[in-house]
Formats: sequence, C-alpha cells, structure tokens
Amino acid sequence: MVGHGFMGAAHSQGWRVAPRFFDLPARPEMALLVGRTSPGVETAAEKWGWKETTTDWRVAVQRDDIDAIDIVTPGGSHAEIAIAALEAGKHVLCEKPLANTLEEAIAMTEAADRAGKDVFAMVGFTYRRVPAAAFARGLVQSGSIGEVRQIRATYLQDWLVDPEAPLTWRLQKDHAGSGALGDLGAHAVDLAQFITGQRVTGVSGLLNTFVHERPLLAETRGLAGTATQERGAVTVDDVALFTGRFDGGAIGSFEATRMSTGRKNALRLEVSGSSGAVYFDLEKMNSLGFYDATAPDTRRGFTDIMVTEPDHPYLSAWWPAGHSLGYEHGFVHQAKDFVEAIVERRQPEPSFADGLQVQRVLDGVERSAGADSLWTRTT
Amino acid sequence: MVGHGFMGAAHSQGWRVAPRFFDLPARPEMALLVGRTSPGVETAAEKWGWKETTTDWRVAVQRDDIDAIDIVTPGGSHAEIAIAALEAGKHVLCEKPLANTLEEAIAMTEAADRAGKDVFAMVGFTYRRVPAAAFARGLVQSGSIGEVRQIRATYLQDWLVDPEAPLTWRLQKDHAGSGALGDLGAHAVDLAQFITGQRVTGVSGLLNTFVHERPLLAETRGLAGTATQERGAVTVDDVALFTGRFDGGAIGSFEATRMSTGRKNALRLEVSGSSGAVYFDLEKMNSLGFYDATAPDTRRGFTDIMVTEPDHPYLSAWWPAGHSLGYEHGFVHQAKDFVEAIVERRQPEPSFADGLQVQRVLDGVERSAGADSLWTRTT
Amino acid sequence: MVGHGFMGAAHSQGWRVAPRFFDLPARPEMALLVGRTSPGVETAAEKWGWKETTTDWRVAVQRDDIDAIDIVTPGGSHAEIAIAALEAGKHVLCEKPLANTLEEAIAMTEAADRAGKDVFAMVGFTYRRVPAAAFARGLVQSGSIGEVRQIRATYLQDWLVDPEAPLTWRLQKDHAGSGALGDLGAHAVDLAQFITGQRVTGVSGLLNTFVHERPLLAETRGLAGTATQERGAVTVDDVALFTGRFDGGAIGSFEATRMSTGRKNALRLEVSGSSGAVYFDLEKMNSLGFYDATAPDTRRGFTDIMVTEPDHPYLSAWWPAGHSLGYEHGFVHQAKDFVEAIVERRQPEPSFADGLQVQRVLDGVERSAGADSLWTRTT
Amino acid sequence: MVGHGFMGAAHSQGWRVAPRFFDLPARPEMALLVGRTSPGVETAAEKWGWKETTTDWRVAVQRDDIDAIDIVTPGGSHAEIAIAALEAGKHVLCEKPLANTLEEAIAMTEAADRAGKDVFAMVGFTYRRVPAAAFARGLVQSGSIGEVRQIRATYLQDWLVDPEAPLTWRLQKDHAGSGALGDLGAHAVDLAQFITGQRVTGVSGLLNTFVHERPLLAETRGLAGTATQERGAVTVDDVALFTGRFDGGAIGSFEATRMSTGRKNALRLEVSGSSGAVYFDLEKMNSLGFYDATAPDTRRGFTDIMVTEPDHPYLSAWWPAGHSLGYEHGFVHQAKDFVEAIVERRQPEPSFADGLQVQRVLDGVERSAGADSLWTRTT
Repeated sequence: MVGHGFMGAAHSQGWRVAPRFFDLPARPEMALLVGRTSPGVETAAEKWGWKETTTDWRVAVQRDDIDAIDIVTPGGSHAEIAIAALEAGKHVLCEKPLANTLEEAIAMTEAADRAGKDVFAMVGFTYRRVPAAAFARGLVQSGSIGEVRQIRATYLQDWLVDPEAPLTWRLQKDHAGSGALGDLGAHAVDLAQFITGQRVTGVSGLLNTFVHERPLLAETRGLAGTATQERGAVTVDDVALFTGRFDGGAIGSFEATRMSTGRKNALRLEVSGSSGAVYFDLEKMNSLGFYDATAPDTRRGFTDIMVTEPDHPYLSAWWPAGHSLGYEHGFVHQAKDFVEAIVERRQPEPSFADGLQVQRVLDGVERSAGADSLWTRTT
Repeated sequence: MVGHGFMGAAHSQGWRVAPRFFDLPARPEMALLVGRTSPGVETAAEKWGWKETTTDWRVAVQRDDIDAIDIVTPGGSHAEIAIAALEAGKHVLCEKPLANTLEEAIAMTEAADRAGKDVFAMVGFTYRRVPAAAFARGLVQSGSIGEVRQIRATYLQDWLVDPEAPLTWRLQKDHAGSGALGDLGAHAVDLAQFITGQRVTGVSGLLNTFVHERPLLAETRGLAGTATQERGAVTVDDVALFTGRFDGGAIGSFEATRMSTGRKNALRLEVSGSSGAVYFDLEKMNSLGFYDATAPDTRRGFTDIMVTEPDHPYLSAWWPAGHSLGYEHGFVHQAKDFVEAIVERRQPEPSFADGLQVQRVLDGVERSAGADSLWTRTT
Repeated sequence: MVGHGFMGAAHSQGWRVAPRFFDLPARPEMALLVGRTSPGVETAAEKWGWKETTTDWRVAVQRDDIDAIDIVTPGGSHAEIAIAALEAGKHVLCEKPLANTLEEAIAMTEAADRAGKDVFAMVGFTYRRVPAAAFARGLVQSGSIGEVRQIRATYLQDWLVDPEAPLTWRLQKDHAGSGALGDLGAHAVDLAQFITGQRVTGVSGLLNTFVHERPLLAETRGLAGTATQERGAVTVDDVALFTGRFDGGAIGSFEATRMSTGRKNALRLEVSGSSGAVYFDLEKMNSLGFYDATAPDTRRGFTDIMVTEPDHPYLSAWWPAGHSLGYEHGFVHQAKDFVEAIVERRQPEPSFADGLQVQRVLDGVERSAGADSLWTRTT
Repeated sequence: MVGHGFMGAAHSQGWRVAPRFFDLPARPEMALLVGRTSPGVETAAEKWGWKETTTDWRVAVQRDDIDAIDIVTPGGSHAEIAIAALEAGKHVLCEKPLANTLEEAIAMTEAADRAGKDVFAMVGFTYRRVPAAAFARGLVQSGSIGEVRQIRATYLQDWLVDPEAPLTWRLQKDHAGSGALGDLGAHAVDLAQFITGQRVTGVSGLLNTFVHERPLLAETRGLAGTATQERGAVTVDDVALFTGRFDGGAIGSFEATRMSTGRKNALRLEVSGSSGAVYFDLEKMNSLGFYDATAPDTRRGFTDIMVTEPDHPYLSAWWPAGHSLGYEHGFVHQAKDFVEAIVERRQPEPSFADGLQVQRVLDGVERSAGADSLWTRTT
C-alpha cells in the first residue's frame, strides 16, 4: 500500500477484516507499506499491521512477491504510481478521484488497457459497497421504481465553515486537482450513475469559494502538520453546484460542499422513477428509503428499510438483523470484491475507465463553470 | 373574492377564522363571491359562507361597500382584475404567482404604485406565514446563523408522475404561464428571499417536461372536470432546476418538480450560514431545524424545534405548546396581516413589487433554460 | 355550550368549521354560551361567535330551541350538567374524562340509557378523529397487522417540569379527579382500545408526584389567573405508569406524564401484531407508521404514510395530498360525526358507556397503585 | 476464549481490532479458542484468527501463558467456568447476563472478591461502550439534564413473531435462564443504571409468552442446527414489562420483547430530568438526542447530536466527524477498556458485582410477575 493517511487506515482495516468475515478465494497479506518519510512509515506500519516498509514506492512496484498495489496518496501522484505498477504487471486499487487532471486519468486508463487481460485496475468508490447503496442499485435495476426520471444528489460536509481551518493539501489545486467537486462531487456522480445505471452526458455548473485565505501549515510541503500565522491562498472550490442530463433520459441536480453548516458527511441521493423512488443518506447508512407508487394509495409512503437482513448485499457475513455496520465496512467489502474478482480473473468494478468517465463529468463541470454555466457535453 | 377553486376554499377559511383567534382592528365581512358561472358560484358561496354572488368581477370592483378584492383565479386573469380594482381604489390581495408574464406583473406593480398611499396591494405567498418559516426568518435576520452562504430550496410534488393525470389549466402555458417553475418555484424563491433577506441576482436554469401528452378534460375551457379519451399537449415544464446567486453573496440551488415520486408537498429550505443553519420542511410544518455552530462541539446538532410555543410567530393566538397547526393556518395569518396593515395604513408584505421581483427570477430561469443554461441576470 | 376555556375554543372552532367543509344533514347553530361569570362569558361569546350567553347552565338545559348541550367544563361538574341535560331530552357531547369519579360516570351512563332511543350522549375523545388514528384503526380491524399482541401507549407532556408552574384546577383532586392519569391516560386507554378493538381487563399501576407544592393562583377558586407567592398542595399524580391485559389476549404498557422534559404533546401508540404493526405519534399527526411483515424480507420497514390522501378518513373534505391538518381538525370531525349520528338517529361513538369503561380502567390503575401495584381487574 | 457463536465472532473482532486503533498498554494475543466439539472449534479458530484450540475449557484455565479468559457461552455455563478461572488467577471477561440464576451470580461475585486485588472480573454489557451511550452518561452525570426523574427503557426485537422460528437454546429456561427478560431486559436495566447513576430498588413485573410451542432443532442438545417437524415447549417469556423505582428518586418503565413486529434491535432509552433529557436508540447508534430545558423557550427542542466528534467518547481513535461506527465497535471498546484496566490494576467496569445487581433486578421482576405484579424489592 502506498500512502498511510486517513485512507490508509481505512484500507488497512479492509484488508485485515475482509478474510475474517468472508470466505475469500485468497488471503491478502499486508506485506509492504510505502510512506514518504521515515520513521512515519514505520510507525504507521506498526499501528496498522504491515510487515515491512519503504520510502520508495518503486520498491513495491519491483518486488516479485507483491501482486497488488493499493494507492491511497493524494490525487496528484496517482498516475505515476498506477501506471508504473500496471506496467510491472501488478493489480492496482487506486483511491478516488482517479487523478487530478483528465490527461492523467486518460493515461491511467490506457495503462490499464495495455496491462493485458490478467492484470486488473480498480478505482476506490467504496460507497458503492455500503449495503444500502448496493441494495438501492438492485431495486432500481430490477425495475422497482420504473423508469428513472430525476436524481438529486448532494454530498454535504462542513469542515471548511470555520475560517481558521488550515490550508491542507486538499485545498491546493496542484495537490488535489479541485476541492469539493473532486473530493465529494466524484462520489455523488459515481453513486448516481451506479444506482441508476445511466451516465451523465452534459452538465451546467457553478463553482464557488467562500474563504479565500487560510492558515498555512508548518510543514514545508503543506501536506500535514499544525497551523501557522501565515496565510496562503485557497485555490480550489468549496462549493460545487451542477445540473446534468443522463443518457437514459433522466435529469439530475448535484451539490458538493464543505460549507453546509451542520452536515458532517451527508451523501444523499434520491432517485425518482415513474413507479417509485429510493432515498439514501450516508449519515444513516444502515437504512434505505423506498417508495412504491404501485401500492394502494392509502398505504403509500417511504418505507424505512433497515438494510441489515441476511438477504441484503454483503449482510450474510455480518451480524443479526438490526445490528449496524459502520463506515469502514465499505472498505472491507471493497477488499473482498477486489480479491474475488482478481482470483476469478474478472474485471473488478469500478474500473479505471469508470473512474475516467467520472473525471470527464467533473471536467465538464469545471469547464461549464468557467463559461458562465453554459451547457457542456461530458461524453 | 374572485374565484372559488382550491385557493378560494383556503382564503375563505382565512377570512372566517382570523377574527376568531386574533384581535383584529377591523372585522372582515365575506361580502361577495365572484365566479365564472352560475350556479357554480352560488354553491360555492353557500359552502364557504359568502353573502352574495356575481359572475362579473367588474361588479365587485364597482361596489362602494367593498374595500378589498381577493383574487384567487388562475394567473392569466390576475393583471386585468387587479389593475381595475386598484384603479377603483380597492385594496387587493392577489394569489401568487403575480402574473403569467413579466409584462403583466410590471403593469400590476405600476398600478399599485399609482393607486396612492392609502390603497394597498399584496401578493399571496402564504408560506411566509407558516410559523416555522417566519421564525426561521427571525433567526437568520437576528444573526443566529451568521453570514448566509448557501441556500438549497426544493419544492417537490408528485401529482404528475401518473401519465393519466389530466390536462388541467395548470399544464397549459396560456392559462398558467409556466408549470412547476411558476407554481412551485415561485414559492421556493420567495421563501428563500424572505428568510435570508437576500435577493437573487442571476440564475442558470434547466426546464424539462417528461410527459408531453395528457388526457383532455371534458369541459370546453379545460379548466376543470373529468378526463376524456382525447389527449392534448402539455405546454409547460414539469421539472425546473436552477442555481442562483444572491445580492448578499450567497449561492443557491433550486428545484421545483411535480415528478418527485412520493413527495407530496415538500417545500424544503436549508440555509447554511457561517455560524449556523436552519432547515424547514413544509411536510413537517410545525417544526424547524436549527443548528448552532457556536455550541460546544460535542453538543452540536440540528435541534428539532416544535414551533408551537406562545413566543413563536402567530402562536400566542392558538393552542398550547405541542398542538399542531395545519395548512390553512397560513391563510388565517395572511388575512390577519392584511387587515392589520390596511387598517394601520402600512404596506402589507409581500407587495406587488416583491411579487414582480420573483417573476423576474422565474423569467430569468426561463431565458437561461432557453439559452443552454447560460448565466442570466435577474435584476 | 357550557364552559369556555381551552376546550371551549376548540369546540367552537369545530362547530363553526364543520359545516363549511362537510355536507352535514343539519347545520349546527352556536346559540348559547354558558360561563361562570359575567362579563367573561360575553367576551368569550363575542370572540368565539356564540349568539347569546348566560351564567346559569340550567337555562340552556331548559330552553326548547336548544337540541344539544356541549359540556367543556372541568370534570367535577360533568355529571350534574349532563344528567340534567339528558333528563331534559337534550343530546349531550361531554368532554373527557367522562367524570372525576366512577360513581358519577356510572350515573351519567345510566342517565344516557334512561334518556331513550332518540336522545344521544357522546364523550369527547377527539383523538379518535385524527385521520391517522382513524386510519390505524381501519388497518388493524381489517387484519393488516394480524392478531394484535402488544400495545405501547405513552402520552408525554412536560408542562409540570418547571416547579413554578402554578397550581391550576388540573392539579387539584377535587376539580380534576386525577392528574396525568385522567387527563392523558384516558386518551391513551381510549385510543388503544379504539384502534385494537380490544378492551383492558386488568391493570397494574404506579402513580407518582414529583413536585408536591406549587404557587397558588390569585383567583379564589384557583381555576385561573396569575401565580402568587403562596403555595398549595398538588393533590394529583404527575406521572402514571401501568401495564394492562386486553380481552383479546394482547398486553400493553401505558405511560401518562406531565414530566417528560421536551415532549410537548406526544401521544404515541404502537400496536404490534402477528403480521405487522402500526405506529402513531400525535406530534406528527399527519403521518402513520405501518409495518407489513408479509412483504419480502429485504423490503420490510416502517412505511411513513402521509395520511392526507382523499381516501383516508375525513380527508376528501380537505386539501390536496400532502397538505397538513392540525390539532383543531379533530374537533371539526367530532362536530361532523356528532351531527350526522344524531340526525340519522344512530348512537354516536364513543358513547357514555365507552367513557365509563375507560373510567373503570383508570379507577383500576388508582386502586392498583394504592395496593403496591397488585394486579387489579377492571371489568 | 470459551465459546464461538455469535458473541465469539464479536469478541474476536474486538480483540483483533482494539490494538490497531487504540494505543494499548499491552497487546492482546488471541491464544486459545475453546469449543464443545471438534472440528467446529478448529473451523472457528481459523476463521476468527485464534492460534490454538481445545474442546476442554479446563485446559485454558490451567495454562500458565494465558492471563485472561473470555467467556461467551450460554448463561448456564458461566458460573462454573468463571469461578474456576478466577480461582486459577485468571482475569475474566464474562458475557451478560452474568448467570442464569441468582445463586450462580452470587457465587461468581464471591469468587471475584476472593480472587484478590490483582485479579479482575468484568461482565460484558458492551452497550455501555457505544459512544452515544457513554456520552449520554457524561451529560447526565455532569448535571446537564438536572435531577433525573423518569427513565423509559425498551429493548424491542421481533425475531419470535414468526411462529416457525425454531426452539433454540435461547428459548429454553435451563439453558437461558429467562427469555426476553434476561437477554434484552438485562441490557435495558444496565444501561439505565449506567446512564443515570441510580440503581433500581423495586419493581412490578409482567411476563408473557405468546407462542408456546416451536419447531425443535435437529441437533440433540438443541443448541444449533436446522428446524425439524417435532415441536417443543418454549419455557421462557417472549415479552417482559416492568416498572421500577430507583434509589435516587427516579421512576422507570421497562420493556423487553422479541415480539415487537418491525423493531429489529431497538434498545431505546429516554431519561427525563428537571432541566433536560437525553434519548438514545441503538438502531441509530451514532446519534444522541439531547434536550436542554434551559435554552430560550423558542429554541428548545431535541438536538440530534451525531456522536462522531473527536471529543466524544472513544471517537478520537476513529474516523473524521460524520463517519459512522457500527455494532462491533462496542466490542473493540470493551477489549480496550478491559486491557487498560487490567494493566493499570484497576477494576474494570461493569464488575461482577454490577452484573449481580442487574440479576437481582431481573429476579425481582420474575418474582413480582409470579405474584400478580406485586411490588418487589430488589435490594
């Protein structure tokens, strides 16, 4: 695994726990952790249970005993690492967004294509693996809400409401590519497309930055550490609003924001169809709202389904009905799905091509926002 | 009162009940009901308690013993009636949207200006009078959420999901002006502006019609009655999506739809500020969500305030805390506010100028939607 | 109508509004208001729209042009007035609880029986007329939740949490009979029996008073007015807890409290059956929760039904789907049902016998509470 | 660890994950798993990651290299194993309820006392370690809701609604001691006492069994396996209702049921105090409702606190705010607290004495239920 921040912790938990609850066709070994600096990487490895460490990701790519590379670094370094790994014949799991620029994402997807039929690349949109989201997709794909007409997707956070929140790498365009758009909007777009089975073909967007300067962090590269008295420029959006049309005829509204006071992690998605609707909220991730418009009119309403029954996606491995799963379970399911696909020589989903397509949508939003919200094709 | 459809019932209840619960400076008399046809108007007058009837609204305008005209007809007839009434020196309460076209709305506003300082005109955005909405405005205006940054306003209904829902006047451009945009979007825009105290200065919009043909109604003018086997063209939008910028620096997203399966009357508005947020949902109209970002971090969360305390707006006249009000109470409060303002020779709010400004926003959305969502000024 | 406090306002609204929204077979006239003192009664009559007034309820009973007496006084005076009215051949609508003592309730029921087949008496459990509650009964009675097994009913208020809340008549045993038990518990018992169709046959109870002294009110009889520095003894319970068994085999838990901090008017009732459940909460009175255990296991959950469809009880007279009703609508429905039953010479429900049966349950709770919670028969 | 059913899986996850997220003063080793039969125990050990296995728990007790015994067997075997372990100087973590009979629980507590000041015993009420529950205790103990007056605690499940649910050991008095009472009621009592800091001194109870016969399981001892056509007698309650008084003056109502159709794992607890209230629901375990009666009256309401901030109990070790924890995290926290207390030579809570006290309350409920609900002391 390359990188060991917040995502590194989540991925480590995924690799560790997946083989305990699921009967995997191969047991993943947490062999080598790559970090930028020593002793940071050793500490992380000790904490998260990785056997060895290095500060040079090329070591990981070159080692024969390593089959797969898990990339959890900031987006700016994804392309270089992923392409090298694929060229070395390693399977790759890469965090989202796939890359910071469309060009990098295209190069990565091409590298995945070149890597041949036995080497697989996957991008880490883990929210697809929240059981309620996977179940929502099942309901929509089975026709339970009819023809999909409207999607409203919002991903609301509020950690930038405070003007003293420091200038981390996530607020710098050269490290993060974009702000709320790439970090949160990417999830909203991927989940909307995953659940509906439709793809965004055009968008009109609006980007905004409310707080333009923030305290610099002490560390030189600005990637971590404590705040200072100096201030630096925020070079990414903190709110992204966009509308979109889908290839199946649906229309959608999207919002990604780090300025929605009081909303901590509210990835919410409602899909309205000709005969029903589904409603998902990541802050209540063990539930799914389902409206069946074919029920008798006096009995219609949103049903609050606890997605904890053995027949719900991934649930047979876990606890009795009514016992909640949490955030990191998505990473456990991701590890499971990745291992299974690779051993069975299937392309794991979402592929790099899927990640690239999400990038194209985000790129369209940026271009539209730069052109007075003019409608912009994304295909 | 001119007109006696759904709105006529609501307004009648407002006039009847207001003097029972509020100590008004003058008691309104329900003198004359105007309808298009006899005996329809007599039946309505008997049912809703109006003393006399006529089928000619000019009669109402000309009678000396009538002080105020309440217009509850479809939007296409608002201008002619309101202007004549104002010219005759009558106070006017006119249902929203103010008119079907910007030109009519301008003419009405000019007529209100010309009518002099003792003749007043008001437009019927009653949702301002839902206690929770009025209380939300109070919180925002008193600085309880800090500087307003984001507004997300949706007005979700679903009565057009069924493709067999008939082609009423509300689906015909010549009668209704627009569809979800003017009917529902007008409320969303007015309420957003009322609560934040900011006005929309520019928009980018998208209009959509999912069902293009619907059963014609039997009655010639297509304004009422039962469905037939013939079909006619739907000439208005059934979904309107738009983003906007406000003159105080806030940005907003708006949705007005009659296609949101399972949502019956969900006018929802969340305002995110630099130190708090408020959340309103008309389907749960006795509550307001309030988030105070200045509370200790472990105690922060949305507080579900039951807006039924005596110190909440309008509530001292009603029931003990915890006893719900309903939809028609907004009309009771509107009658109260209108009577009080007129007797005290104050301009009742919202004025025709306020209504016109909302029309300008809706007009901007239509123009933007017709120009590939290009950003469009509304001032 | 005899009495003009909080209940008088609600009943007046019921009489005034019912004929406007429902096609009644007879139009009620608000003829005579009876109050203890002048000019209080004149002021109330003017406010609520009663034609004449008197300070002697016997006048009302004796007048030939009065067909029905509506009693909204404290419980201690119910028996005398109701019996006199029935003996004079007047129909009677009497607020709950039927009486303060079992003996009075028995005498009233006997008077109703003696009054003959064309004179009717009804007790005012209006919450039966909240559409969601009436719909819940329909679901249960039609077998939609199977065999009823468990009922949990709570009626939670908090207006006595403040130790400075004054000593009104509701806190004095001689006026009110009991405290939370008779005021709130009566509703919980009636609604539980109404929805399930089962009757309580035995109980075990616990009564408690947390605040034993409160400020006396200035007015001599202690029935109204402002608080003083003197304190008087609270002679009723502020919390009642009891369990019960029903004649159909169900078991129930009940709570009535004025000490449930933060709960304003939370009459909540959940009925669990062998194939489903219903959940009602008066604070969210336009909704009903319904769980259908016969649905596919992955789609089960409580459906939040907005009880505002035309096919729901009472709703065809009101607004479009999704538009809320409020507290006083129950009184409108009560007026409607009372007038219809009388004109059609049917016994309106709930009868005095129904009210007496509820009294027996409350009496059983008091006896059990006085005997160390020992199980006590109530039939 | 002795036992490897549902609880074994949860405890294993606790031992494995705790040292990864918390800096423990000692790292637990998952040394030896004890099961009744081979190869069942080997399969479980492989799956859950235990190094060795045995089918004789006495082996575990005798091994010098084992410091602590974790008992997750049915309640009937707790006493024998725990006492032997304590006598051998092992620390003991024992699942709840402490034992099936009061006598056994007393013997276990005496054994813990006899074991000396460096050997510790703890009972596994893990719900204390749900962050929202621990935070609720903090709020109450810090006086944020004032003097505690009322507790309503329900633990609602529905897995016995289906009459074909098989006769597992949990439905047999000789294995499980009691039914819903001991399994669910024990949690409700412990959590109520934990949060309020008050102890139950007396109870009045009602036990009920709705389904008296169920399909027998194939396996001889009836502890697992598939259902058969034969039926056996259910010898425990499926519903327990009781009221209680606490030593600090509060009163409480309790319900434990496996018959609450549609409720899967609803351990709900509301504590009403003289100046506030808290509300917890295990089905929404990442939230806590908090009502502050000292707030301005127009701003009062239940605040829905997401208990995911770094300053909330246990949260600094986990994910960013807004990211949910799940059911098994309570077991991780339990492992952490147990290890820390032992290394620091502190008594871990809850002790066997705490577990015994809960048993006394449950025993009181059973005695009261057997005596027509007569009030019964539990101290």
